[in-house]
Amino acid sequence: MPDTDTPETEFDVVVVGGGSGGYACALRAAGLGLSVALVERDKVGGTCLHRGCIPTKALLQAAEVADRTRESETFGVRATLEGIDPAGLASYRDRVVDKLYRGLEGLVDSRGITVLRGTGRLVSPVAVDVEGRTVVARRGLVLATGSRPRSVPGIEPDGVRVLTSDHALTLDRVPRSAVVLGGGVIGTEFASAWRSFGVEVTIVEAASHLLPTEQVSSSKALERAFRRRKIAQKLRSTVTEVKATEEGVEVTLGSGATLEAEVLLVAVGREPATDGLDLAAAGLDTDRGFVPVDEHCRTKVDGIFAVGDVRPGLQLAHVGFAEGIMVAELVAGLDPEPVDHVGVPRVTYSDPQVASVGLTAAQAAERGLETVEVSYDLAGNGRTQILAGSGSVTLVAEPDGRRVLGMHLVGPNVGELIAEGQLITNLGLPAAQVARLVHPHPTVAEAVGEAHLALVGKPLHAHG
Amino acid sequence: MPDTDTPETEFDVVVVGGGSGGYACALRAAGLGLSVALVERDKVGGTCLHRGCIPTKALLQAAEVADRTRESETFGVRATLEGIDPAGLASYRDRVVDKLYRGLEGLVDSRGITVLRGTGRLVSPVAVDVEGRTVVARRGLVLATGSRPRSVPGIEPDGVRVLTSDHALTLDRVPRSAVVLGGGVIGTEFASAWRSFGVEVTIVEAASHLLPTEQVSSSKALERAFRRRKIAQKLRSTVTEVKATEEGVEVTLGSGATLEAEVLLVAVGREPATDGLDLAAAGLDTDRGFVPVDEHCRTKVDGIFAVGDVRPGLQLAHVGFAEGIMVAELVAGLDPEPVDHVGVPRVTYSDPQVASVGLTAAQAAERGLETVEVSYDLAGNGRTQILAGSGSVTLVAEPDGRRVLGMHLVGPNVGELIAEGQLITNLGLPAAQVARLVHPHPTVAEAVGEAHLALVGKPLHAHG
Repeated sequence: MPDTDTPETEFDVVVVGGGSGGYACALRAAGLGLSVALVERDKVGGTCLHRGCIPTKALLQAAEVADRTRESETFGVRATLEGIDPAGLASYRDRVVDKLYRGLEGLVDSRGITVLRGTGRLVSPVAVDVEGRTVVARRGLVLATGSRPRSVPGIEPDGVRVLTSDHALTLDRVPRSAVVLGGGVIGTEFASAWRSFGVEVTIVEAASHLLPTEQVSSSKALERAFRRRKIAQKLRSTVTEVKATEEGVEVTLGSGATLEAEVLLVAVGREPATDGLDLAAAGLDTDRGFVPVDEHCRTKVDGIFAVGDVRPGLQLAHVGFAEGIMVAELVAGLDPEPVDHVGVPRVTYSDPQVASVGLTAAQAAERGLETVEVSYDLAGNGRTQILAGSGSVTLVAEPDGRRVLGMHLVGPNVGELIAEGQLITNLGLPAAQVARLVHPHPTVAEAVGEAHLALVGKPLHAHG
Repeated sequence: MPDTDTPETEFDVVVVGGGSGGYACALRAAGLGLSVALVERDKVGGTCLHRGCIPTKALLQAAEVADRTRESETFGVRATLEGIDPAGLASYRDRVVDKLYRGLEGLVDSRGITVLRGTGRLVSPVAVDVEGRTVVARRGLVLATGSRPRSVPGIEPDGVRVLTSDHALTLDRVPRSAVVLGGGVIGTEFASAWRSFGVEVTIVEAASHLLPTEQVSSSKALERAFRRRKIAQKLRSTVTEVKATEEGVEVTLGSGATLEAEVLLVAVGREPATDGLDLAAAGLDTDRGFVPVDEHCRTKVDGIFAVGDVRPGLQLAHVGFAEGIMVAELVAGLDPEPVDHVGVPRVTYSDPQVASVGLTAAQAAERGLETVEVSYDLAGNGRTQILAGSGSVTLVAEPDGRRVLGMHLVGPNVGELIAEGQLITNLGLPAAQVARLVHPHPTVAEAVGEAHLALVGKPLHAHG
């Protein structure tokens, strides 16, 4: 590595991108005694904190409050929902984001991390230019530049009629109607929140189900719940044309049918953000825009790593956290285990929530694994009835029922429940051990216990 | 065992009491191929379904709806809370209970269990009289008669001014003000729900903290939250006199101070219900009213078992379930492990919720165990901020931090999170294994992961 004159230009670790993967890496590296520079052109916290997880979940929480108020009579509470206050919603969202942002800034500061404001540009396999200042990575250079909403050729987001999720989050009004292009996590979450706000919503999804990577039973349960909520769904459908109209947009589907709405949300996934990075200068290239890595997030260039949304694989904040931590430990000379993407829990925070960990039955079959499935309907779960909810717990297990390979949940608060599933599937805990631990009553989590009881042949509150 | 003429009078298992412990035992025994009679004088489902867990949690859910509506502006939703509708609340509660009751009745019926309506009276160590009909237990006689609200000498519940939890649940009005005698689970839950309904509430608790058996940090957190909610708390206080007044009651405390309120709720625990059972006829006696048992719920008389609230120990529906299942397996000749009460999760469904599993620091010290404590404040948890909540995760661990002995949670939905803690503490999972599994973002469950990361010396979103 080249010598440099001033200590400030040389760090053990230089991280480009201050989102979930980047800041987690910086925090862990600093915790391990390494000197760290964190390059960020916008705000530390990245997409997740400022344009992703946190603000969308705030939107969904406001949606839940609206729903609870609208249905208050169901619970013996007399209340009137007057409407959504876009300014109040923005203020709530910003309050949450700002508090977490201040906390994160304090944390980064307290760990002695040098934050460099600006766009990072690679100038060699060990050096990054940040708006004219060059910093050198002594032991590790970590790319964590994240992702941005993917665009669709011929559909130009204008922030008024045609929106990305970034636009949708900061919309200063509640649209009367919306077409959501894409029935993945982002599309279903916006569809759910908007519907709670009274918006007429139609989801257009190319695959045969919403959340097409989830267990089919989960997708179908979500579709049923959305139908009950009067969220229209055009599955196996593509958009061929989008035209501006006086009142919004006219969307033509592959079938020739047209949909009119005030806005179109384009939610067809996220693409890696590497603009301005000049990967070639470090000897790196990309695969469909992503930076290829091995299971330890190592790129093909020694000492350069890529974590989070910029590498191929699951685009989830907590995967970024885990990969950032792993790379920091690797650079510090520890021997961390790789992050197993199959073992990472996935949560869609729609109403109802969908959560999963491990293999779907289809994924297991692709791997040549035989499985059995056990489902427990939340109709028999007291807590779910109290919450006026519905859903199910589905276990995908080895044929002898000894181990659970995948857990698939639909229902109220199931995002909180999947943590238990994460332990069960990742640690390969025997199903009988889980079944023996009778879960607290009355919780939704109990249903996980009931499903395990059924799996080991001793169903409690289950027919059949 | 004596011969009998008709098959209907002899069963492999006779269970007296159709609540959580009793019906779980009956269901499991039937599942194992045994013939079962279930004696119940009221409704199958018992206290939990009809007068306990389920209706109180319905009350607390209505309370949450009221709170969310009242605070809707915080979330950018414009709504007006007009009040509580006692008839609507009763109808919601009954709807939930009735649906679960119908499900349970169907389940009991489908497993071929003979339900005998009436009060069971022991006539020998193997025979029970049910309103004149004698049934004989061939292999096991299971006492599962449950509990009822404990009374306080000199304070006579009248259902109008002085209430038990049974009265409070079916109250046809929202009182203006209430004194709650007892700061345990039942008292804090009613205090929390009533406060959400706008009631002026004062809790009187003899111990130095609310929920005195919980980790002190959890009790203190609940007390702080209740103070913010303007729930008055008189700790280390007893009631010496209760007088009826024109508008309700005047309650005199040991200090001489008096409290006036519309109602007094007596919530000082639950006592075993053995009236009419004639334990002596079977050669059994009681200890402070409870039927003594060993760790497998065996009484001193061979072939007689006692499960659930009627035996000394934790009074929780899910302990009843677990014990009922265990006894059924024992009677069927299997070799089940005893139910470890330390390993049972406890949940208080107040706002905020309090949940725990395993040992408190004080309990560990009593056992001569050295421990360390790690706390993670939910102020740093994104999901909690979104929910406008507060709370903490506290781990009581071995001094080397390798294993967690107790998990103590305060905050939103933490009742759902303790299932993961149940696995961790009961299976003795290494803390490093839990820490390695980065939890889904943004959930409250994440904080459990953060606490484990801190415990193993690699804090992520934690100062210090």
